[in-house]
Amino acid sequence: MEKHELVIIGGSAGGIQAAICAQKHHGLKDILVIRIEEKAMVPCGIPYIYGTLGSVEKNIMPDTLLGEAKLRIGEAVSLDREKKTVKLKDGDEIGYNKLILATGSSPLQPPIPGIDKKGVWFAWKNTDYLEELAKAIDGVGEIVVIGGGFIGLEFADECRKSGHNVTVIELLEHCLQLVCSTDLCIRAEETLTEKGINIITGNGVKSINGAEKAESVTLQSGEQVACDMVIIGIGVVPNVRLAKDAGLEIGPTGGIKVDEFQRTADQDIFAVGDCAEKYSFFNGEPVPVRLASVATREGKIAAANLFQAQWRNIGTVGVFSTVVGDTALAMAGLTDTNAQKLGYAVVIGEAQAASKHPGTMPDAHPLRVRLAFDRRSGKILGGCACCTQSVGEVVNLIAAAIVNEMTMEQIAMFPMGTHPWLTASPLVYQFTDAASNALHKVKGTVQAV
Amino acid sequence: MEKHELVIIGGSAGGIQAAICAQKHHGLKDILVIRIEEKAMVPCGIPYIYGTLGSVEKNIMPDTLLGEAKLRIGEAVSLDREKKTVKLKDGDEIGYNKLILATGSSPLQPPIPGIDKKGVWFAWKNTDYLEELAKAIDGVGEIVVIGGGFIGLEFADECRKSGHNVTVIELLEHCLQLVCSTDLCIRAEETLTEKGINIITGNGVKSINGAEKAESVTLQSGEQVACDMVIIGIGVVPNVRLAKDAGLEIGPTGGIKVDEFQRTADQDIFAVGDCAEKYSFFNGEPVPVRLASVATREGKIAAANLFQAQWRNIGTVGVFSTVVGDTALAMAGLTDTNAQKLGYAVVIGEAQAASKHPGTMPDAHPLRVRLAFDRRSGKILGGCACCTQSVGEVVNLIAAAIVNEMTMEQIAMFPMGTHPWLTASPLVYQFTDAASNALHKVKGTVQAV
Repeated sequence: MEKHELVIIGGSAGGIQAAICAQKHHGLKDILVIRIEEKAMVPCGIPYIYGTLGSVEKNIMPDTLLGEAKLRIGEAVSLDREKKTVKLKDGDEIGYNKLILATGSSPLQPPIPGIDKKGVWFAWKNTDYLEELAKAIDGVGEIVVIGGGFIGLEFADECRKSGHNVTVIELLEHCLQLVCSTDLCIRAEETLTEKGINIITGNGVKSINGAEKAESVTLQSGEQVACDMVIIGIGVVPNVRLAKDAGLEIGPTGGIKVDEFQRTADQDIFAVGDCAEKYSFFNGEPVPVRLASVATREGKIAAANLFQAQWRNIGTVGVFSTVVGDTALAMAGLTDTNAQKLGYAVVIGEAQAASKHPGTMPDAHPLRVRLAFDRRSGKILGGCACCTQSVGEVVNLIAAAIVNEMTMEQIAMFPMGTHPWLTASPLVYQFTDAASNALHKVKGTVQAV
Repeated sequence: MEKHELVIIGGSAGGIQAAICAQKHHGLKDILVIRIEEKAMVPCGIPYIYGTLGSVEKNIMPDTLLGEAKLRIGEAVSLDREKKTVKLKDGDEIGYNKLILATGSSPLQPPIPGIDKKGVWFAWKNTDYLEELAKAIDGVGEIVVIGGGFIGLEFADECRKSGHNVTVIELLEHCLQLVCSTDLCIRAEETLTEKGINIITGNGVKSINGAEKAESVTLQSGEQVACDMVIIGIGVVPNVRLAKDAGLEIGPTGGIKVDEFQRTADQDIFAVGDCAEKYSFFNGEPVPVRLASVATREGKIAAANLFQAQWRNIGTVGVFSTVVGDTALAMAGLTDTNAQKLGYAVVIGEAQAASKHPGTMPDAHPLRVRLAFDRRSGKILGGCACCTQSVGEVVNLIAAAIVNEMTMEQIAMFPMGTHPWLTASPLVYQFTDAASNALHKVKGTVQAV
């Protein structure tokens, strides 16, 4: 029987990163990655296939990343933990010394009447399916996107760019509400509305209607929206059947339960990425955050811990960014609502300034940072930034502050670098100024006159 | 006699920030800022007047930033510490309770024969002078820039953009050598050379020649370079005469000696910005780093400490960025050379990937990060990034890692956010990957097989 030192089930972000790092950390050569799909999609790139990129082929994760790890295209159907083997759909059995489950997630399919009709699509990470979707989109005019989270808005925006009329339907009061502060949600909605996208919030979908294929959706309010196609992006469900059947425990958000070293209860089996349970950086409680960036991080950690617990997962911070219309938005850590739920007394500091300096530099645009702090400890809890492209890295600066538990004072004094072409003026640098402004609100603690 | 709770001498970056923060932190209303210049220049914007901005008027720091602080245009000529008064050139005497010296710096004027000739210019932060320089540049074809540091290269590049033939002369082996790793120095030189700038390194200027005005320079090698004008940007000298005459101590790099709270030996007098001595974050020793971003930080710290020592200056990290040609470069912390001088065993980790992902996204360009770590503690010592605009914030992420003394492991596991439009793929995110690659080099410490 074929046997490998390390078998990784799943070859998307988490699985590939685990393979890379098992080689880097341990010089491990005998690694097998088992993947269902012939080619792996860049997960975050999927919406861009339908506008900016223009083809599925342009959104492929290169398998060269795997280095010396071998790749087997196939589906693992069962796992025998006693024998330490994985059975494939074609009947082959493969032995492992260590196993990493990186089985990912599947699009959440809500129980909406009519969801099985033709013309209803999901973001399956499958090249053939996504190519079919490309052909289907090509022929239609009116698209309804159900779900106003990142994936929904990105799909909507890309379909808009390629000339379609798009309506987004979001159940909650605002798009992006679960991860963004309200002002950012509104900003995203306004931007997309200006670009011609019809956004309906605070309204769910009661049914998808049509003879054979989707022709309209009926909202909970009773309103009907005509369409040629429906794209659903309302979240994902961890792929845990293999783990569950093998007796591994599943956590409250539906992921495989792991400890701080990405280990399951079986000392030879690890789980990483969308299929694994995540725990909050702030309080260690399970959190439903599923992102490729988190998956790669967990892949690294599992690889480091394969033979001995070494790297502790400090927990999931939740760092997001997106671009809708011309507006880049990014956020890290707790939203105000979540911070309040965890019992923090939240102090907000905000700052806005031109993204370049002086503000007369070409292409200078407003860049705003909003930071949330715990009033008692002064520590940063979360933050967001908009609207220029540099927020993609500003949010990582915010994330660095979060993981290092920086206080308002430390951030106000942070030694940032600045440059006319690249950042705001040092006099009004948004990250440090937002902290100064939060301090100003609680100035009883720093006042000395 | 006029008297104020707080008098700030100098109204550029450090002085203005001190005035802002004295209001923010203490609600202080009775603040007087004394400034020689009618209008304050954005210091880092000065080179851009001569290309991108096109006029001095576009490079003015707005005095509205001062809030309720009063502004007096005038020159402080002496300081009586016993009487706690400042005397102005016009004879007026002004009393203070607390005094912040933010007198800045002046361009370094090297003892080169011919330096007093017409047509030899410096980056004086003075609107009239800089307007004269604009007129002078307008009429000429050949410009020699002496000094291949940031200011020199930026002047050279802007003059090039406005159609001049430019030669840069740098005494050291490479441009930017004092702050950049060699590969970045070379990259900057190559970029500027491709754009048509003539770069001469490892060669000083022996004399500036011409009947009345500069017509050529003679290099130490004997070579002559013809020119219509010379711009000198080889560093600055702290303006400390006022402090020195008042008996305040001057440190080894020529700045006013201050403690970790920005206090001079006189408990009522603080010094910030270019006129103040800086101390290394790494070992507390004096360092000759003079930047507007450092000045604003010290302004904040001095303001917070006016009435009671509260905020400790953790020391100067040194965070720089620039754009030459189309290439953005940024660096933070110790160069390899400086790290070795301080006795660290340096381990380098590097990573390069497309700035967007997949790499097929429009305008994706290589972005490279290079991090230096102390082998023993694993802590980050410095880092640099090039070549896309996002390095302006990537370097601040590196700076955050430095001030928080993050280790290779912590950075390798850093929970960055990623997005197709805004960053590299999470699989190859440069900041975390550079740390992984450094770890890989010392993998004896993490190997467990």
